[in-house]
Amino acid sequence: MSTKSVIGNFFEDFSIGQEIVHATPRTVTRGDTALFIALTGSRFVLHSSDAFARSIGYREAPIDDLLTFHFVLGKTVPDISLNAIANLGYAGLRFGAPVYAGDTLRSRSTVIGLKENSDGKTGIVYVRSTGFNQRDEMVLDYFRWVMVRKRDASRPAPESLVPKLPDRVAIADLVVPKGLKLKNYDTVLAGSPALWEDYQVGEKIDHLDGMTFEEAEHMMATRLYQNTARVHFNQHAEKQGRFGKRIVYGGHIISLARAHAFNGLANAFRIAAINGGRHTAPSFAGDTIYAWSEILEKAEIKGREDVGALRLRTVATKDRACADFPYQREGEGGRRDYDPAVVLDLDYTVLMPRRPIAKRRKATSKALLPRKSKPARRKR
Amino acid sequence: MSTKSVIGNFFEDFSIGQEIVHATPRTVTRGDTALFIALTGSRFVLHSSDAFARSIGYREAPIDDLLTFHFVLGKTVPDISLNAIANLGYAGLRFGAPVYAGDTLRSRSTVIGLKENSDGKTGIVYVRSTGFNQRDEMVLDYFRWVMVRKRDASRPAPESLVPKLPDRVAIADLVVPKGLKLKNYDTVLAGSPALWEDYQVGEKIDHLDGMTFEEAEHMMATRLYQNTARVHFNQHAEKQGRFGKRIVYGGHIISLARAHAFNGLANAFRIAAINGGRHTAPSFAGDTIYAWSEILEKAEIKGREDVGALRLRTVATKDRACADFPYQREGEGGRRDYDPAVVLDLDYTVLMPRRPIAKRRKATSKALLPRKSKPARRKR
Amino acid sequence: MSTKSVIGNFFEDFSIGQEIVHATPRTVTRGDTALFIALTGSRFVLHSSDAFARSIGYREAPIDDLLTFHFVLGKTVPDISLNAIANLGYAGLRFGAPVYAGDTLRSRSTVIGLKENSDGKTGIVYVRSTGFNQRDEMVLDYFRWVMVRKRDASRPAPESLVPKLPDRVAIADLVVPKGLKLKNYDTVLAGSPALWEDYQVGEKIDHLDGMTFEEAEHMMATRLYQNTARVHFNQHAEKQGRFGKRIVYGGHIISLARAHAFNGLANAFRIAAINGGRHTAPSFAGDTIYAWSEILEKAEIKGREDVGALRLRTVATKDRACADFPYQREGEGGRRDYDPAVVLDLDYTVLMPRRPIAKRRKATSKALLPRKSKPARRKR
Repeated sequence: MSTKSVIGNFFEDFSIGQEIVHATPRTVTRGDTALFIALTGSRFVLHSSDAFARSIGYREAPIDDLLTFHFVLGKTVPDISLNAIANLGYAGLRFGAPVYAGDTLRSRSTVIGLKENSDGKTGIVYVRSTGFNQRDEMVLDYFRWVMVRKRDASRPAPESLVPKLPDRVAIADLVVPKGLKLKNYDTVLAGSPALWEDYQVGEKIDHLDGMTFEEAEHMMATRLYQNTARVHFNQHAEKQGRFGKRIVYGGHIISLARAHAFNGLANAFRIAAINGGRHTAPSFAGDTIYAWSEILEKAEIKGREDVGALRLRTVATKDRACADFPYQREGEGGRRDYDPAVVLDLDYTVLMPRRPIAKRRKATSKALLPRKSKPARRKR
Repeated sequence: MSTKSVIGNFFEDFSIGQEIVHATPRTVTRGDTALFIALTGSRFVLHSSDAFARSIGYREAPIDDLLTFHFVLGKTVPDISLNAIANLGYAGLRFGAPVYAGDTLRSRSTVIGLKENSDGKTGIVYVRSTGFNQRDEMVLDYFRWVMVRKRDASRPAPESLVPKLPDRVAIADLVVPKGLKLKNYDTVLAGSPALWEDYQVGEKIDHLDGMTFEEAEHMMATRLYQNTARVHFNQHAEKQGRFGKRIVYGGHIISLARAHAFNGLANAFRIAAINGGRHTAPSFAGDTIYAWSEILEKAEIKGREDVGALRLRTVATKDRACADFPYQREGEGGRRDYDPAVVLDLDYTVLMPRRPIAKRRKATSKALLPRKSKPARRKR
Repeated sequence: MSTKSVIGNFFEDFSIGQEIVHATPRTVTRGDTALFIALTGSRFVLHSSDAFARSIGYREAPIDDLLTFHFVLGKTVPDISLNAIANLGYAGLRFGAPVYAGDTLRSRSTVIGLKENSDGKTGIVYVRSTGFNQRDEMVLDYFRWVMVRKRDASRPAPESLVPKLPDRVAIADLVVPKGLKLKNYDTVLAGSPALWEDYQVGEKIDHLDGMTFEEAEHMMATRLYQNTARVHFNQHAEKQGRFGKRIVYGGHIISLARAHAFNGLANAFRIAAINGGRHTAPSFAGDTIYAWSEILEKAEIKGREDVGALRLRTVATKDRACADFPYQREGEGGRRDYDPAVVLDLDYTVLMPRRPIAKRRKATSKALLPRKSKPARRKR
């Protein structure tokens, strides 16, 4: 029998310090950006309009940061997580150079930790993965850990090394895109008057809308990223599996939650970092995804008076509106459990324009009145 | 609770003369055009082939006129019709400058009429909306009226103003694209020998084909246009709604009807105007759309001997072939009702090449014989 | 009644030597390539990365060879096979100039054979079809034969002419893309160390993965190619048909099988020819497609030491994994029948890089060890 087709790496195939160059670099195209809009309904203006992007210092509309995430992660799947039982977590995920149509992305990973589980059948692999463009500029850098099967349970365990991972990306480490100038940032075209100054720590925002997705949609999204994880695609196999059906790529839920977050966070023009994230329950075709967000922190960015950072928690639910912000609740034995409707708990940091200094003092609560109690916006 | 997410304007948020700049300008891409073909199967050669487009004076293939319509309309939804109960009508819809990949479209609306309904709970809002490209050229201009909920039924009604709207776009107002030259128009590549001279007022054309569409398809189309009307996307909410399921964006039915109309109107290379349109019944995923057309008027265009206008009625049905041209029939009390299979009644005006003057006299009925009675086309 | 809509050619509309220029030339875009990836999950690096394509002498990433096939064939459908009862076969299919985004493809066919069936109601039409780009370079050339209905069974049969068709494309006739230079071919980025030398005639490769597809997906693919064959789109009509449901365009199954073949044949960077193919059973939405391949022949290419040809059989199945290589089995009366799970039997020829001469002698079996028994790939 031929051995040319591969079934992915198992726990014992990884070693500390090992570096893996992932296959299939990917040139990003305007086809990808159109599909991303078609599959998520995203309305963030920076990614929608070349004219707007130029007005704030970009060469043209960069692709959605999550699209960069999906491409870079997708490349790593055949080598890192094809035999993963569980995608345990992300940490310290930092976006670098903006990505434009025409850029070619590739991914590389280093194994930074290994720990065999006590059952002897599985182990945890920790990697640091980095995505680059064709000019070798970092576009994304992150830590990830997954639980992977051993091929042979009788093989001795490797020495355990559990790396210390950052619990968040430091504000000083956020990449502010080169050339960014927000003087001409147009809040009318961006879809909301609310800027950095207007958000308060602890403020919760219901993003209101619900979006149902179909099998064709999540599969098209996941294939677009050349992510080969089998549970998303093979109904013939999955009908025998744990859920009896295809499981949706968690990244697609992140995309939908971010698209919903436009309604309340329209000026969060860039995801600068993902501090951590959990897919708290699987999603399936036919689910309707809702989302809400909480402002966890506000931070100034050194040397920039025009842009600030907001650390957010965005929670996505399925088949449940978020007017009452469902999250965790008391579970068995006093433990905090997630509300069963919650599917995603994402901790991330966005960049948002600040009010021009001259106007900061003049800014009144008027600008923040809910739109429902003022007339529709007038011509600017 | 945060007030940063918005739920759209209500009837009392609108005032006569109010101008609204809509958010999220959109750069059109070749990704959009590929998706439009993938979702409709459109075969009009002008939008399919750069080489053909250049041969008749365009810079390259412009996007489908309906794609322009969907983008421009989509932008207006969050401000105009998010709380609409009914999309009552369109009038005087006129296409302007052709739109190319790379153009950035944006929309602006002016409130031109208001009329509260006698129930005191709803009112009708009349707007004139215009789409522009990045050079401030008009790409689309139209009137639309929608029925919108009041937020507070106890608020007094505004003074009524019902604008007089055109019942059709005058031929003199049609925009013939600059630089259009039809001397080299190739009817073989365009897919039909029938030109303007060959159509007769009153002629009815069965477009023959039926196209079934799925939930994933109409949602992808509607999201591509960043149209946020909720009834199209949220099964969790709509299962409690009037129909128990998602309602299809009426514009997608227009797209499918136009794509079908290729078979019989292949040389109608440009929609110049939509005089009026009614979605006579809702459509749902799983429906199979058929269409037929009638020639309502033929008009010469001043100063052009190479191109003429045809005013058409295109009727789309669901789950019913159109060999017998289903339309209206006698209803209760002698009223004319639509055949229950009819979902769309569209009155619009197209441009079509005319036969070169030298050949007009020579044109014989031969050229008009049905293809089924002559051999397949020979090499040109 | 109008005769302007057409129902396609019938058997008596064809005559030997007749040449048909097909309508609707198609400019290929990056939107098409993104959709192709989204619908198939293809990972062949040549079509995924401009940077990789340039490194081996292409101008940029050419489109997938099968995308060229789908476009060129799709154009011919309205004239050749709209009234086909059966798509009987392909032969001598040869790919020519690589196709890039921006190229405009068109198709032309010549009728080379006719044979009325003994029932007098149908006949077989043989055509040679050729696809060209805007520079009149051949991009695809093939023979095809289809069974077509007669319009009028009482019409006398034409003289029979059954052309002699090639049972395979000769190696000498394969087109090696101009400027191809494989010196810098990077097997790590391409996803497999296995090169031409490493494959043995008779070797069978299980491509392992299964991919389920939905109605929306196969319809989007088929519409993207502007293929108008009705059985793929019209559920309202097909529910009365032979299978009670829409039949999938056989070409989409070829696309899925080729995408699966990446896993085991990642360096088969170009399909140079399709020698023949049979859709042995229809496929329907919801089917899960698997595939396996066998190496039928290995051939050197005259004048090239850097690239060789492999003739392959790729077999696709539905709802059945391919670990045991399902193919034919003894049927009734000793006849060889296809395993009922088999849906595609494709005989085609690919190009694959050869090991640099200096290294051919040194190449050890090490390089061919299955990846599962060596550590994950190290950084290059």
